[in-house]
Amino acid sequence: MNNKFEMIYEGKAKKVFTHEDSNKVVIEFKDEATAFNALKKEKFKGKGKLNCLISSKIFELLAKNNIPTHYLGMKNDYTMIAERIKIIPLEVVLRNTAYGSLCKQTTIKRGTVLKEPLIDIYFKNDDLNDPLLTKDRIKLLNIIDEKDLDLIIDLTFKINKILKNFFYKINLNLVDFKLEFGYNSNNEILLGDEISPDNCRLWDLNQKNDTIVSLDKDIFRNDLGGLIEAYGEINRRIDSYINSIQ
Amino acid sequence: MNNKFEMIYEGKAKKVFTHEDSNKVVIEFKDEATAFNALKKEKFKGKGKLNCLISSKIFELLAKNNIPTHYLGMKNDYTMIAERIKIIPLEVVLRNTAYGSLCKQTTIKRGTVLKEPLIDIYFKNDDLNDPLLTKDRIKLLNIIDEKDLDLIIDLTFKINKILKNFFYKINLNLVDFKLEFGYNSNNEILLGDEISPDNCRLWDLNQKNDTIVSLDKDIFRNDLGGLIEAYGEINRRIDSYINSIQ
Repeated sequence: MNNKFEMIYEGKAKKVFTHEDSNKVVIEFKDEATAFNALKKEKFKGKGKLNCLISSKIFELLAKNNIPTHYLGMKNDYTMIAERIKIIPLEVVLRNTAYGSLCKQTTIKRGTVLKEPLIDIYFKNDDLNDPLLTKDRIKLLNIIDEKDLDLIIDLTFKINKILKNFFYKINLNLVDFKLEFGYNSNNEILLGDEISPDNCRLWDLNQKNDTIVSLDKDIFRNDLGGLIEAYGEINRRIDSYINSIQ
Repeated sequence: MNNKFEMIYEGKAKKVFTHEDSNKVVIEFKDEATAFNALKKEKFKGKGKLNCLISSKIFELLAKNNIPTHYLGMKNDYTMIAERIKIIPLEVVLRNTAYGSLCKQTTIKRGTVLKEPLIDIYFKNDDLNDPLLTKDRIKLLNIIDEKDLDLIIDLTFKINKILKNFFYKINLNLVDFKLEFGYNSNNEILLGDEISPDNCRLWDLNQKNDTIVSLDKDIFRNDLGGLIEAYGEINRRIDSYINSIQ
């Protein structure tokens, strides 16, 4: 990084730096993969770049579909410029197919296609291990007012429609994904963070049988191998789709 | 037990038997105390009797206040007769003061008096360790229809008003409590299970300073000693209040 920028925050997968414009930030994507609240950690050369490239293209797609996002542009292959936002400490998970923690905490079988998408909201708090929140607990914790919570939920359903449809076109099943939102200096809610195989479960639809082939961070969680190849495949499919429609 | 009755179900703290009337059951209260999903277990001679006596008097109080309950009467000191209900697999917890799991899963400090009562609903499922449920997950799991869920929530708030007021009169602070509901043969929702220091957190208000003195199962959870004495004290205070108003 250029040393005129000062690091504001270092997360598990990204570093956030100041920008000469105080309403903007510079986000550098790291090569680190973490899972299980960072109990598991590994470096994958090239992961930061792939996630930055994928996220940038997805943010552009969402912006074209009138979703307000923090994304402003790319600085280089592994760094993006974004609007500076104050992150709301909620992780908004939308599930189209049951998998992961939902199946550990309920009797829903893994792989069940849900009749309607389910939204689970978690408290973004590493010390507490990101616990599930009910709407009443969100209210009690005074994290966000009800109107803004409704707005975020509404945006998440809209984003799902756009992403599900987009990934389906490149033969990927969008199983679930996690979003984070924040307020900009005008107090507007923007989609923040990243949209990548780190926080989307994407299953390859190019399969003859019902085998689940994960092209996402489950490769790391479950030690399946080939993480960079899978993320690279996602990036390639996105590029070839974009080229085909231009 | 009279051997003409057949055991239908054995829970952690109670045994349920058939009754000659198929719409009724006989519930025997055990002397067993369990905590942490039965990882901790101990026998306390006389506990079954105290919980049966306390529950019976509380159910009578609730019935007088138009709350539909399964309670029909006592058979002996440790056995009650109740309407036979099909239990809805939800544990409805109402909290007036923050304590227990709420404080482990959020940033709310133990002992915080909540501005409004909070209802947390858990999935009654020992294998899954009774996980917290959101309304959307309850809907997904198809446990209960929305109208009936609203009815149960409404009943829980009403029960809280009655119990909080009642316990306050006998110098007890009703911190939180857990309820279970079920359907009778007419498909009506009735309050089931028991209402005792096993599932109510009750703090003694006869304290000069702010020390928390638990007169409930926290004595067992936290190895404080004097469980039978505390449950006996609750029972005595209830009796002396009942006698004073007759």
